[in-house]
Amino acid sequence: MEITNAYITLPSGFIANGVHAGLKPNGNPDLAFIGSEKPANVAGVYTSNLVKGHSLTRSISIIRSQEAVRGIIINSGNANACVGEDGVKDADAMASAVASVLNTDPNMILTASTGVIGSRLPLDKITSAIPGLVNSASASEECGHLAERAIMTTDTQPKEVAATVSIFGKEITIAAIAKGSGMIHPNLATMISVFTTDANISQKALQSMISSNVKDTYNRVTVDGDTSVCDMVVIMANGASETPEIKEGTEEYEVFKEAFHSLCFDLAKMIASDGEGASKLVEVVVNGAKTPNDAYLCVLAVCRSPLCKTAIFGQDANCGRFITALGYSGADIDPDKISMTLSGLPVYENGVALPFDEDVAKEKLSEHDILIQIELNDGEYSDRMWTCDFTYDYVKINASYRS
Amino acid sequence: MEITNAYITLPSGFIANGVHAGLKPNGNPDLAFIGSEKPANVAGVYTSNLVKGHSLTRSISIIRSQEAVRGIIINSGNANACVGEDGVKDADAMASAVASVLNTDPNMILTASTGVIGSRLPLDKITSAIPGLVNSASASEECGHLAERAIMTTDTQPKEVAATVSIFGKEITIAAIAKGSGMIHPNLATMISVFTTDANISQKALQSMISSNVKDTYNRVTVDGDTSVCDMVVIMANGASETPEIKEGTEEYEVFKEAFHSLCFDLAKMIASDGEGASKLVEVVVNGAKTPNDAYLCVLAVCRSPLCKTAIFGQDANCGRFITALGYSGADIDPDKISMTLSGLPVYENGVALPFDEDVAKEKLSEHDILIQIELNDGEYSDRMWTCDFTYDYVKINASYRS
Repeated sequence: MEITNAYITLPSGFIANGVHAGLKPNGNPDLAFIGSEKPANVAGVYTSNLVKGHSLTRSISIIRSQEAVRGIIINSGNANACVGEDGVKDADAMASAVASVLNTDPNMILTASTGVIGSRLPLDKITSAIPGLVNSASASEECGHLAERAIMTTDTQPKEVAATVSIFGKEITIAAIAKGSGMIHPNLATMISVFTTDANISQKALQSMISSNVKDTYNRVTVDGDTSVCDMVVIMANGASETPEIKEGTEEYEVFKEAFHSLCFDLAKMIASDGEGASKLVEVVVNGAKTPNDAYLCVLAVCRSPLCKTAIFGQDANCGRFITALGYSGADIDPDKISMTLSGLPVYENGVALPFDEDVAKEKLSEHDILIQIELNDGEYSDRMWTCDFTYDYVKINASYRS
Repeated sequence: MEITNAYITLPSGFIANGVHAGLKPNGNPDLAFIGSEKPANVAGVYTSNLVKGHSLTRSISIIRSQEAVRGIIINSGNANACVGEDGVKDADAMASAVASVLNTDPNMILTASTGVIGSRLPLDKITSAIPGLVNSASASEECGHLAERAIMTTDTQPKEVAATVSIFGKEITIAAIAKGSGMIHPNLATMISVFTTDANISQKALQSMISSNVKDTYNRVTVDGDTSVCDMVVIMANGASETPEIKEGTEEYEVFKEAFHSLCFDLAKMIASDGEGASKLVEVVVNGAKTPNDAYLCVLAVCRSPLCKTAIFGQDANCGRFITALGYSGADIDPDKISMTLSGLPVYENGVALPFDEDVAKEKLSEHDILIQIELNDGEYSDRMWTCDFTYDYVKINASYRS
C-alpha cells in the first residue's frame, strides 16, 4: 500500500537529517545523512558513464566488498568529480567525519555527491557541519523531509515515496527519495536515489532485485540525453521488521519486489516530470517492434529529440518530427507500417499523416501528461520511456547553472 | 580561388530563379528552380533517415538510373513527406510542370522539398507559379540569389559559395547554395544543398567525389541531433567550360576535388553557425583517440549534448559537462588521460580540472567562434565537428515552427 505522506525514515530503525553546510549559495539544505541504527544490507546500481565521481567510486567499492553499512552522507552543490586524488581524500574525509560521530568504521558510511563537476569540495564546511547533522538526525518526519531537501539541486519538487507490504504477517515498509533533474539519461537515468527498508533480506537478494528493476524504470527516463557521472540508486535493508529472511524465489520476495518496483516506477516518473524546465510529463510507448532493442531505440530517439520535445512544449501536433525520429533511430522499422496517436488522437496511419482537428489536438496537448503511442506493426516487442518537454527554462537553468 | 559575391548561376550555362508561390505565409520566396541549358551530369548524397520525403525519393531514383538532368525544382515550406501516394504524385506533377515549360522529359527534372512534414503540398499554388518561375529564370546575379532565398526555411542568412579553379588552362567555376538550419545531424548533416559547375566531368567521377567529401564536412555538422527526412546534396556538371574531361586519378581531378571540398567545408560551417537560434559557432576537435570511431563518438557526444551547448550559450566554462559527455560517448577512453582547452585556455589536464581565471574564460567564451580542443592522449586518431550553442531562440523557433 502506497503511503501518501512519504519520507525516508518511515521504515523502522532509520534516522536522517539535512542541514545547510554552506555549499549552496541560496542557503538551502545541502548536506544529508541517512543512517540505520543497526548495519543494513546494501545494494546499488550506478551510472554507466566512464567518468565517475570520487564519492560514487568509493561507494561502489564498498558495496562490492562488504554486505552492510550504517548509512550514507550526501552533499549537493558539488559533484566531487574530476578533481583527482584530492577528490578521493575528500570522500574519505566526509565518511570519516560521520563514522567518528557514530563511533563506527569509515567504511560503514557510503558517500554521494551531486552538483558542479570539476571543483574541489569545500571540505571544511562539510566536516564542520557533520557533527550537528548526525547528532540531530532522527526518525521524525521533519528530519526525513530535510534529508530529501538537502540532496536536491535544480529539482523544483521533492521526490519521496513509500509503501508498506504485509510479509510473514508483519508490516514491512520501504521508503525512497530521489533527486533529478538535469544530466538525466540511461543508463542510469536517475541522479541519486536512496531506498530504506526494514525488511530482512540479504545483500545478494537486494542486488538482484535492484539490478533487474531499474531497467524499465530509472533506465527509461531521459531529460536531456546527458548521463551524469554521479548517478546511483542504493537500497539499505536493516531487518528491523524482525521477520524471517525474505529469500529469492519465494512468494514473499515477489511481494516485496513488486512494492519496490512500484516505488522505482513512481520516482522515475517524478524525475521526468520535474526535469529541468519541464512543463509536461511525456510518456512514449512503442509497440510492434521486431526486437526488444528496436523498441528501445525507437522510444529513445523520440524522447531524446529536441525537435519532438520543443513541439510538445509548443503544444504543436507536429507528428512529422516523431516519425523523423523513428526513421533515424537506428531501429529496423518499416516506415510504411507506422501508426501513431497523440494522447489518444490518431495522427498517423500506415506511414501516412492523417488529417485531424487542430483544436482537438491543441486541447489534448495542453494537458500536463502527454502520451505518445507508436505502433510499428512489424513484430511483438514493446518499450516505454518518460521524458519532459524542452522549454525556455531548460536553457535558462543550464546557461547559468555553474556561474 | 574563392569568389566573394557568390551565387548559384556563376558557372557558365546555368540559370536559376526564386519566387513566392504561396507556401510561406510571410510572403518570402518559397519555390526555386536551378537549371542547366544543356543536360548536366549529376550526382548526389542523401539522408540516412529510413523515412524519406517523396520529392527526395524521386530524385534518388532518377540519379541512380540516368547520368544527366536539366535541373531541379525545390520548394520550401512543406517537406512533401509522410503523405503516402499523394506525395509521389505531387513530386511527379512538380517535375512535369517544369519539364513542360522546358520542353523536356519530366525525368530530366529533380525534385526537392523542405519544411513541415506530414502535410500535402499545395500543388495548385506550385504548378501555377512554375511557368513564371522557369520562364524568368536567368544567369543573373539577382536570379541566383533569389533561388537561395527560396530554399531557406528557418535560416537567417543565405548560404552561397563559389570558387574558380584553373584546369587545362581554362577557368572552371563551381558554385553552391545550401539551407539549414534545424533537423541537422549526421548522416546527412546538410538539409538541401545544390552545386553547379561548368566542369566537364562524368557522373561516376562526380559521385565518387561527392561521396568521399561529405564525410568530414556535411557529416560533421550537428545542430540538434535530429536527422531530417529530406536532406540531399546534389551537384550538376554541364561541361560548358569545354575543357577535356576531368578524369579520376588525374592531377586535374585533384584540383577540382579540392575546390569542391573547400566549398563543402565553408557551407558546413555556415550551416552550423546559422543553426536554429544559434549565437555561436562551436568547433570541437578530438585528438589522440584509439580508433577513428572513438574520435567520432567523442566529437559527436559533445556536439550533441544540450548541457554543453547551453553552457556555451551561457558563456560558462563548465568543463565538467564536456568531460561528462566524453564519459558517456561510448568511446573507449581513459578518463585519467583527458586534457582540454576552451578557445586556447587550459581547463582540464590528465583527468583533473585545472584552476583558471574566470574573467579570462568569460572573455574567451564571449567570442562568436568557440574552439573546444580535447586531447585523449590514448592513440593517434582525430576528428572534428561543428555545432552551435543551444539558446532560448532554438526553443522559440521550434515550439512554434509548424503552427
